[in-house]
Amino acid sequence: MIKAAIVGGTGYTGVELLRLLSKHPQVEVTVITSRAEAGTKVADMYPNLRGHIDLVFTEPDVAVLGECDVIFFATPHGVAQNMMSGLMNTKARIIDLSADFRIRDVPLWEKWYNQPHGAPDLVAQAVYGLPEVNREAIRTAKLVACPGCYPTATQLGYLPLIENNLVDPTRLIANAASGASGAGRQAKIDNLLMEISDSFKAYGVAGHRHLPEIEQGLRDVQPAGAAPVALTFVPHLLPIIRGIHATLYATLLDANKVPDLQALYEARYANEPFVDVLPAGNLPQTRSVKGSNVCRIAIVRPQQRDTVVVLSVIDNLTKGASGQAIQNMNIMFGFEETAGLDVVALMP
Amino acid sequence: MIKAAIVGGTGYTGVELLRLLSKHPQVEVTVITSRAEAGTKVADMYPNLRGHIDLVFTEPDVAVLGECDVIFFATPHGVAQNMMSGLMNTKARIIDLSADFRIRDVPLWEKWYNQPHGAPDLVAQAVYGLPEVNREAIRTAKLVACPGCYPTATQLGYLPLIENNLVDPTRLIANAASGASGAGRQAKIDNLLMEISDSFKAYGVAGHRHLPEIEQGLRDVQPAGAAPVALTFVPHLLPIIRGIHATLYATLLDANKVPDLQALYEARYANEPFVDVLPAGNLPQTRSVKGSNVCRIAIVRPQQRDTVVVLSVIDNLTKGASGQAIQNMNIMFGFEETAGLDVVALMP
Amino acid sequence: MIKAAIVGGTGYTGVELLRLLSKHPQVEVTVITSRAEAGTKVADMYPNLRGHIDLVFTEPDVAVLGECDVIFFATPHGVAQNMMSGLMNTKARIIDLSADFRIRDVPLWEKWYNQPHGAPDLVAQAVYGLPEVNREAIRTAKLVACPGCYPTATQLGYLPLIENNLVDPTRLIANAASGASGAGRQAKIDNLLMEISDSFKAYGVAGHRHLPEIEQGLRDVQPAGAAPVALTFVPHLLPIIRGIHATLYATLLDANKVPDLQALYEARYANEPFVDVLPAGNLPQTRSVKGSNVCRIAIVRPQQRDTVVVLSVIDNLTKGASGQAIQNMNIMFGFEETAGLDVVALMP
Amino acid sequence: MIKAAIVGGTGYTGVELLRLLSKHPQVEVTVITSRAEAGTKVADMYPNLRGHIDLVFTEPDVAVLGECDVIFFATPHGVAQNMMSGLMNTKARIIDLSADFRIRDVPLWEKWYNQPHGAPDLVAQAVYGLPEVNREAIRTAKLVACPGCYPTATQLGYLPLIENNLVDPTRLIANAASGASGAGRQAKIDNLLMEISDSFKAYGVAGHRHLPEIEQGLRDVQPAGAAPVALTFVPHLLPIIRGIHATLYATLLDANKVPDLQALYEARYANEPFVDVLPAGNLPQTRSVKGSNVCRIAIVRPQQRDTVVVLSVIDNLTKGASGQAIQNMNIMFGFEETAGLDVVALMP
Repeated sequence: MIKAAIVGGTGYTGVELLRLLSKHPQVEVTVITSRAEAGTKVADMYPNLRGHIDLVFTEPDVAVLGECDVIFFATPHGVAQNMMSGLMNTKARIIDLSADFRIRDVPLWEKWYNQPHGAPDLVAQAVYGLPEVNREAIRTAKLVACPGCYPTATQLGYLPLIENNLVDPTRLIANAASGASGAGRQAKIDNLLMEISDSFKAYGVAGHRHLPEIEQGLRDVQPAGAAPVALTFVPHLLPIIRGIHATLYATLLDANKVPDLQALYEARYANEPFVDVLPAGNLPQTRSVKGSNVCRIAIVRPQQRDTVVVLSVIDNLTKGASGQAIQNMNIMFGFEETAGLDVVALMP
Repeated sequence: MIKAAIVGGTGYTGVELLRLLSKHPQVEVTVITSRAEAGTKVADMYPNLRGHIDLVFTEPDVAVLGECDVIFFATPHGVAQNMMSGLMNTKARIIDLSADFRIRDVPLWEKWYNQPHGAPDLVAQAVYGLPEVNREAIRTAKLVACPGCYPTATQLGYLPLIENNLVDPTRLIANAASGASGAGRQAKIDNLLMEISDSFKAYGVAGHRHLPEIEQGLRDVQPAGAAPVALTFVPHLLPIIRGIHATLYATLLDANKVPDLQALYEARYANEPFVDVLPAGNLPQTRSVKGSNVCRIAIVRPQQRDTVVVLSVIDNLTKGASGQAIQNMNIMFGFEETAGLDVVALMP
Repeated sequence: MIKAAIVGGTGYTGVELLRLLSKHPQVEVTVITSRAEAGTKVADMYPNLRGHIDLVFTEPDVAVLGECDVIFFATPHGVAQNMMSGLMNTKARIIDLSADFRIRDVPLWEKWYNQPHGAPDLVAQAVYGLPEVNREAIRTAKLVACPGCYPTATQLGYLPLIENNLVDPTRLIANAASGASGAGRQAKIDNLLMEISDSFKAYGVAGHRHLPEIEQGLRDVQPAGAAPVALTFVPHLLPIIRGIHATLYATLLDANKVPDLQALYEARYANEPFVDVLPAGNLPQTRSVKGSNVCRIAIVRPQQRDTVVVLSVIDNLTKGASGQAIQNMNIMFGFEETAGLDVVALMP
Repeated sequence: MIKAAIVGGTGYTGVELLRLLSKHPQVEVTVITSRAEAGTKVADMYPNLRGHIDLVFTEPDVAVLGECDVIFFATPHGVAQNMMSGLMNTKARIIDLSADFRIRDVPLWEKWYNQPHGAPDLVAQAVYGLPEVNREAIRTAKLVACPGCYPTATQLGYLPLIENNLVDPTRLIANAASGASGAGRQAKIDNLLMEISDSFKAYGVAGHRHLPEIEQGLRDVQPAGAAPVALTFVPHLLPIIRGIHATLYATLLDANKVPDLQALYEARYANEPFVDVLPAGNLPQTRSVKGSNVCRIAIVRPQQRDTVVVLSVIDNLTKGASGQAIQNMNIMFGFEETAGLDVVALMP
């Protein structure tokens, strides 16, 4: 059993980590911190954990954290980067669910997040935690930067097309929709049931922070000589709690020489425990992954025209955050990659 | 007061017609038909109409219908076309909310709807009832074919770009989402709350019947010499009752010579009572039109790149069906175009 | 045309007042105040009002308010009472949607609302604005205290039983459920979609502020000699925006001498424009009143045992707040009681 | 590993059995039947099971079923009773999730279910599968009749009060609300999202089939000499998929001699793995048990008056059906009672 700490455990990614880790056969959560709720029992805040977790929120303390084997940061961006220098020399390995170490280009990060980075020297040491791309580097990483929710669904959907340079990388369009829990547990008018249930809207059309992360991730897998990826990314807000649905569009570079796309996708993900390519003719729905770490994907070429459409769904709190963090942990510690994550989605 | 009949009044477009017509100052609904519910009081089926409508469903009878001033067909496709020949010589003017007369190319209709057309000779007499394009022809039409819900939101969103040939018409992408009432009042597993609430999915990606209708409508407004419109259309199912949200993508033909798009849209719709171009920086949400006949539109050019994004929302039952039908009726009979439609959307 | 002011117009009862008053034939809203949003256009906050209302929020100013014919207070409790003394000598008649003047027993109010009352001397001058009980007093009232949402649904449901002393008044049980908009437009974690959608719970079981209001209202209509009403009131939170459903239980005093309850209810409400007693065998649903000012009621005596069950539904923002306020205004100013309120509920 | 069969596996209790049994360490599902879907892969119907279950629906065959160790009937009422005689002599032990064997009084069953019982002689052999009452009898039962969803939540809520004769048993009121999945996977208009989302209503007020089941269950635990239980039961339909919330009312027999109710409940359920009495002051919410087999309960005595209120929540598909069935199986086969059921509810 390794010892795990969760920093910033009152949010939705925190409770999702606890839901999954409480049943993980090789992990014991020993520390969970929250400045605001220090002293509160976790199960008083999240009654689904009654009988499963008997922890109390504590103030974050670097000395205590450093004695754990793994630390999950489930904090808003800006927090992990400022605690990181004190933790890099401890035995703890760190998995940051926030955006702090996802983007390697520090000025780009600072532009999109509109603040100076607190640990720019450490950014290069972080491994981007998308196992389907970086599994080997993750094994030995000291610090893993977990991908965002939209970037996970979008990259997994585009990977086979981009890796094989089958589509025009400069005209990608990712139309994505997220459940409301992606906004976090924040007391804002915009997150009230009365404001967002029974409605649907786009947001951040002029620019969303996940755009540079997706572009970086896709550029990383392009073959030499390909024009660099440029993406139009439009997120939307769904009146549900969990789920991301990405509808990805790309233009075939050569509509006369298109490989069997279904076979291509199936081969690319044949050994991936958490990517499920649906049989041809099936389309994914977010409920089919609710509470599970799976990404389900379909690829369609409508009317045999030159635009292909990829549909990709995940649970934003699981494969889009806490489940993927645990998948990374499993890889880092040599556990079975599916340990603690072999969960059937809740449906209906 | 003119006399109106509704054929096939048990569905959601039927009750929406009644909701609006019951308050219209110049219309009296005198006949409402349903084979299945003949003899049932309308208000027993739709309790919101108690105290507002005192009608009983009757069997459809061409003789009775023909004495009305206007007949609304709120039937599934295939019904109106087979009753139409008997009505063309009556005094009644006809507004068909179904797909029967929307597509001028009869073989194309037959291909997409997978059945022979019952009145191919009458198709050419139908006027496509999108007032923002065909207002003058509607005034004198005997038979108006009301546009579909997706086509309404999509065409209104694209019109200014296409009419001015500003974007590549061969690479249009319409990513749209509809509330579940678009599926009609049918007892199917796919429409159960347990199957579609708390979830989101695409459907009809390989081909949807609204695709040829949208392409026809957009081609009609292209300037001479433009390459014909080709569209990738991907509809999605929202876990809400009402609302369509279309996210429309287009590539600027000349990114160096782009007019002020906001001004272009505002000018195009300045005199349209039911199209609202939002101020720059605002994005529409479906709830802002719930129960109203308005289409709200925003146009964005993210990152000043060469892809423009148009957001367009309507209520699928109102501007997407019954409200637009009444707008057509108002035009046909010389009423104030907003008569009976001056309704504030229900929000929150 | 009379001139109306709305104090505290940014909340959900404020926008609901505007939705209805903007179409009222005899009222013009000339002032709408908000300390927080002074200077903001109303339609920027509530886009459903674009094209219908062209007002800007202003700071509340007693001199300006006093020149209006009617002032609606759509403020949290505690506000109206502290502005009231300055308004009592103006020409304006006042309709307070908050709880400030609902309870005649000032110490009881102070106990439940946990603060001293700011205008105890004015409480006796307020008329409780339930038209179905107090219509005559409302006509001439200077100050009307609009009932709460739960009290409206509950009192209208119980009235015929209590007025006729048919049930044991000391054992009443009101089990009620409200849409989330009853909590107001407040940025609290408890109101987030992520916390309350896809769930259901009771709250305030140990004591809710609407309990003393309901007990007062029911005691007012008891015949002489009846034991005073005592109620167990349990509110619940529905994962929808609008709607109150009250399930009311009462024990028949003499199970052998029970009048025709259906006929009793129909007779009691025969002349009430906004109370609809459903035909025997029908049960109400909240959607049948969404956006309308109607209360729909059914009465059932299960198994012919001695417990009767009354079902009563309203829209908490309409008959439970803003619609009832306008109904009161219509009575006060001698307008048709249904003016501006002849709206069909939005269904589906 | 024991071998399990599921009869009628296409419904929601079927897929819920599969979700849980696929992770049960001591059970292998070897047969799943469906007349309508014979030949279909289970995971094609329920994509959440892709990668977890590799079964195909087959026609029900008594010979095949009889070779399993346990058979779950997840069929509508009327099916199990007609297949039961052929199975009673096989080695299989049977857990019926339907209503067929819940009520011992056969004529009473026939009255409420409006059909003759197909196996009246076997009714007496069935053990009512509420482990918190009948655990010992369940251990050795050949045939277990799983309780209904409402009866489970209601009985667990009332048990301590009734067993100790603390309340008037003749005036019980159970006001309960269920998620829509309780209606099963049936293609009916009444179950469409468009009909039941965004609304709330009571149903079956005049009489619901769970009433006699609850009365029987509560009478079974009454002490000698108590007046027999009589219940007013009013179910309501929630616009969510899963969850039952029961709000239970009872009148204290002697308001001056009331034991510490909180302590009474905690003691009664101290050793029950799936009943969680919340700390005083907490109220349960359905989401806290979503997907889990737990029943969470609170007891309140409002205003210290003589009416007590018990709040009880379960997931209707888990503790209200399939989870409880597995709990019964665990008891019958001597497994750890929580095997396969140690699941954290999905929240948010």
